[in-house]
Amino acid sequence: MRQSKLFGRTLREAPAEAQTPGHRLMLRAAIAKPLAAGLYTWLPLGFRVQKKVEQIIREEQNRIGAQEMEMPVLTPAETWKQTGRWDALEPITFRTKDHNGREFMVSYTHEEFVHLHAMQELQSYKQMPQIVYHFQSKGRDEARPRAGLLRVREFVMKDAYSFDVDQAGLEKSYAAEHGAYARTFERMGLDAISVESDTGAMGGDVAHEFQVLTEVGEDRIAVCPNCDYRANMEKATRSADRDGAQAAAAVAAPSEIQTPGATSIEALEASLRQPPEAFLKTLLLRDARGTVVAVVLPGDREVNEAKLRKILGTSEVKFANDVDFAAAGGVRGFIGPVGLKVRTLVDTSVDGRAYIAGANRKDLHLRDVVNDRDFKGERVDAHDVRAGDLCPKCGKGRLEIKRGVEVGNIFAFGTYYSEKMNATFLAEDGTRKPFVGGSYGIGVGRAVQTIIETHYDDKGILWPPQVAPYQVHVLALPVNDEAVRAKAEALVDDLEVRGIEVLYDDRDESAGVKFADADLLGIPLRVTVSKRNLKENAAELKLRSSSDSEMVPLDKATERIGEVVASWPR
Amino acid sequence: MRQSKLFGRTLREAPAEAQTPGHRLMLRAAIAKPLAAGLYTWLPLGFRVQKKVEQIIREEQNRIGAQEMEMPVLTPAETWKQTGRWDALEPITFRTKDHNGREFMVSYTHEEFVHLHAMQELQSYKQMPQIVYHFQSKGRDEARPRAGLLRVREFVMKDAYSFDVDQAGLEKSYAAEHGAYARTFERMGLDAISVESDTGAMGGDVAHEFQVLTEVGEDRIAVCPNCDYRANMEKATRSADRDGAQAAAAVAAPSEIQTPGATSIEALEASLRQPPEAFLKTLLLRDARGTVVAVVLPGDREVNEAKLRKILGTSEVKFANDVDFAAAGGVRGFIGPVGLKVRTLVDTSVDGRAYIAGANRKDLHLRDVVNDRDFKGERVDAHDVRAGDLCPKCGKGRLEIKRGVEVGNIFAFGTYYSEKMNATFLAEDGTRKPFVGGSYGIGVGRAVQTIIETHYDDKGILWPPQVAPYQVHVLALPVNDEAVRAKAEALVDDLEVRGIEVLYDDRDESAGVKFADADLLGIPLRVTVSKRNLKENAAELKLRSSSDSEMVPLDKATERIGEVVASWPR
Repeated sequence: MRQSKLFGRTLREAPAEAQTPGHRLMLRAAIAKPLAAGLYTWLPLGFRVQKKVEQIIREEQNRIGAQEMEMPVLTPAETWKQTGRWDALEPITFRTKDHNGREFMVSYTHEEFVHLHAMQELQSYKQMPQIVYHFQSKGRDEARPRAGLLRVREFVMKDAYSFDVDQAGLEKSYAAEHGAYARTFERMGLDAISVESDTGAMGGDVAHEFQVLTEVGEDRIAVCPNCDYRANMEKATRSADRDGAQAAAAVAAPSEIQTPGATSIEALEASLRQPPEAFLKTLLLRDARGTVVAVVLPGDREVNEAKLRKILGTSEVKFANDVDFAAAGGVRGFIGPVGLKVRTLVDTSVDGRAYIAGANRKDLHLRDVVNDRDFKGERVDAHDVRAGDLCPKCGKGRLEIKRGVEVGNIFAFGTYYSEKMNATFLAEDGTRKPFVGGSYGIGVGRAVQTIIETHYDDKGILWPPQVAPYQVHVLALPVNDEAVRAKAEALVDDLEVRGIEVLYDDRDESAGVKFADADLLGIPLRVTVSKRNLKENAAELKLRSSSDSEMVPLDKATERIGEVVASWPR
Repeated sequence: MRQSKLFGRTLREAPAEAQTPGHRLMLRAAIAKPLAAGLYTWLPLGFRVQKKVEQIIREEQNRIGAQEMEMPVLTPAETWKQTGRWDALEPITFRTKDHNGREFMVSYTHEEFVHLHAMQELQSYKQMPQIVYHFQSKGRDEARPRAGLLRVREFVMKDAYSFDVDQAGLEKSYAAEHGAYARTFERMGLDAISVESDTGAMGGDVAHEFQVLTEVGEDRIAVCPNCDYRANMEKATRSADRDGAQAAAAVAAPSEIQTPGATSIEALEASLRQPPEAFLKTLLLRDARGTVVAVVLPGDREVNEAKLRKILGTSEVKFANDVDFAAAGGVRGFIGPVGLKVRTLVDTSVDGRAYIAGANRKDLHLRDVVNDRDFKGERVDAHDVRAGDLCPKCGKGRLEIKRGVEVGNIFAFGTYYSEKMNATFLAEDGTRKPFVGGSYGIGVGRAVQTIIETHYDDKGILWPPQVAPYQVHVLALPVNDEAVRAKAEALVDDLEVRGIEVLYDDRDESAGVKFADADLLGIPLRVTVSKRNLKENAAELKLRSSSDSEMVPLDKATERIGEVVASWPR
């Protein structure tokens, strides 16, 4: 490919709106460009990267026996309504109507539709296990598209779906996909870790995310440095610290303390000179249906909204209003669990010690409030873990909280969809049983940008060879020197005959511009054919990832380049 | 691939709604299945065909130097509004809004958006010529989806866009795409002819369709058997027949005839005993803006609505209402061009003879009405050509009217978009000039079904080898015979090692079922490993396209199959 004809122009400076290093480099190197907020076009260089990423995903899916197919982008409302997701997904999806008023969703995912097909194509247990997958555009009406391809409004996802006859079969399929994902990310140069996660809108019980740890990620992940425990914040738990768990046996009955104007934990800390963990925080909340609930945590803990939504089985949690406070007998700023007339959830981080809690009277708190003695509630895990918490798995390591980008996720949803859709097969015992399923997603664009976010230096991108847009970047310096051009073009032809992918910088630009662009584009091997090198009848080979270079005789250059390329992982 | 695990079940009978042979076979062979009217899923077998068709298209685009990219499905309204197509395309497109009320179209085509990118990426004349393309899903709100993949509501189109500095450059790019299209269709086994066509919603002057002539097509094409003239009905013209062009020199002035109740050409033919070409037909019509126009044709000719829309520069033509008739001085059923007070278009098929025409008075016609003497109007070509008309190119052949499926179309629109969008580049003379462009489309799914429509017999599909889902179909008969299964599987392994694509029928089914399914699926080479053949230590090779079969010693089978496969076009 002649760079002079490349559709895609490098930029010295990234547009001001670029938010992360990868976002800046993606725009500067003309990998992808936006048409509107969150709607991106792959320009030819980026298209090649995306196709290589797609091909790695495809090969690893095929390796575990998955079959490729393709379902449409527009999906009829009726089917979404069968599972209740037409309404549940409304806030995050794009919808359209035909001219007869029939409704469609720009597909968000395809669980419902693959079940429709499975009902037709899979009649008998003999046809299982089955995994099918496709690459298809998804729409997500993200309120805040972010950081280029990291959070967009349209993207191509590889989504795979497994169908098994029972839970044991699902576990095998799930494990096969888990393995395929690990190989997939490794092959594309991503150091992704598997993290326990919540099932969210997908239903079911077991789910994992594949997270690449990087500061630009917006997810937070708890990681144990002592064992292999990894969980996202919606799922992470901790072991209770023994030293914090004081017994309450000898504690006196609650007594009042005057706390005029102290309506927050911070104010209480200051006025009573106690650490935050000495207090109880009581939150009065209402779910999407308007049901009110109180959540009780130690003063030093934050509620995890996703955990709470899952506990309550709701899509939304808001603060309670004045009417709710009155009904519960709580007083805003001085609310506490003692005597509260409402469903009460007591977080597991509340231990046996004597706390200071709101008295449900203005300007008044109670000291010596003990859980299960002075108040009672359902025990739930609704708090955020934090750095330093004890690992729930090994009980020894102290959790670290990292930032990550979710590059893939897998869900074992079981019969969540098949039961709602009455999607059944003929089982070995002659009865009809619901399919037991899982779904497995990878966002292609996010993977590409995450590769950039984790492979760059101050000069530009450093593509892992297996996903680089081209393998070799040949620079002719200067291109208007007959001899240089002739040698450079002969080399390019030789390399292409060998099946090596070459970008040939034939532009009439200075050495400075060409070297800077080569560093920016980040093609793994740079080969310079210059007037100076030709005096020695040589070409200069330089890996983008190294500062060393190598002079190779021109008549050996093709062979040597072939060796370098052959040494790379595929 | 083991057929027992194939996601996609053959059907003995096609669903009743299947409309064409290709539609029936596509459903029976599990190539594609609908999720809703006009929304199709490629099942794994069809997916493989579609990918091969896509790859042929890709290779021929790359061969002419086109660069692959990918623009999104959702496209912002603002850009469509710049060219006026947001409103113009409303009747045929799907739209959506985000939760902030911003509007998007499920893309219908991408001329506007590729111009946006060209403005950013192509700064100078030095970067041209350029052709870029992508494969992307398009939405079309077809009121009547038809015949499977022939007319759908969502489909993947390869759309390419050329950018040149001037008209001469465009003509070269257009010719390059025309050549690429001819090779593309030939390679995929389609006998497509290039046909002059109207530019329609694309703008510009020059356009061609690639049509595959088949009875299932819904387009009509005029074809000259004497020369290479081919045009679709919106574009087709004819030479005037000399024998019909009587001079009007000696014709008397118009005189009245009583024609009570004769309000149609048919009624006039019966009552006056004259052939239809003796009459003038006058149509009073209104365009999308409500402007009224009269169109005058001979009684034996039909108006071509697409031609008329183009002449009037309108998106819609309707019959005039009573108020329009009154204003024009016409009388419904007795309207004629003499004395009519409205813009009048006289079709070129009206010649110098003396016609019988409506008198604009009830129950009255005029005889001896002569064009350009008794009435005047703008001369336009607004009629349908018909079988037997004289070829406009050679003037000798008599046109034939064929049915066809449009599998591709190309448009030379010039500066139609760049002027509206102010999309310019720096020209060699230092000024800024608008891009001169063309666009080039192929619908992948329609191509696949058209291949089936033109490659089948009463037993099933006959895939051209280059697009067949698999190259070889190995049948084990019966599969539960140890020796048969072992030999069949060894053969499959050997073939796959050689890179030959094999579908292996390992199902526990009768010979009758397996042979019938093999004929239905239409894989080019069938190889039968059976108990009977094993007695001779042989396998039976049979081409789907031939009734002959060949017995080959088992130890030579891989080699022989390799030879057959290698002899096929790629």
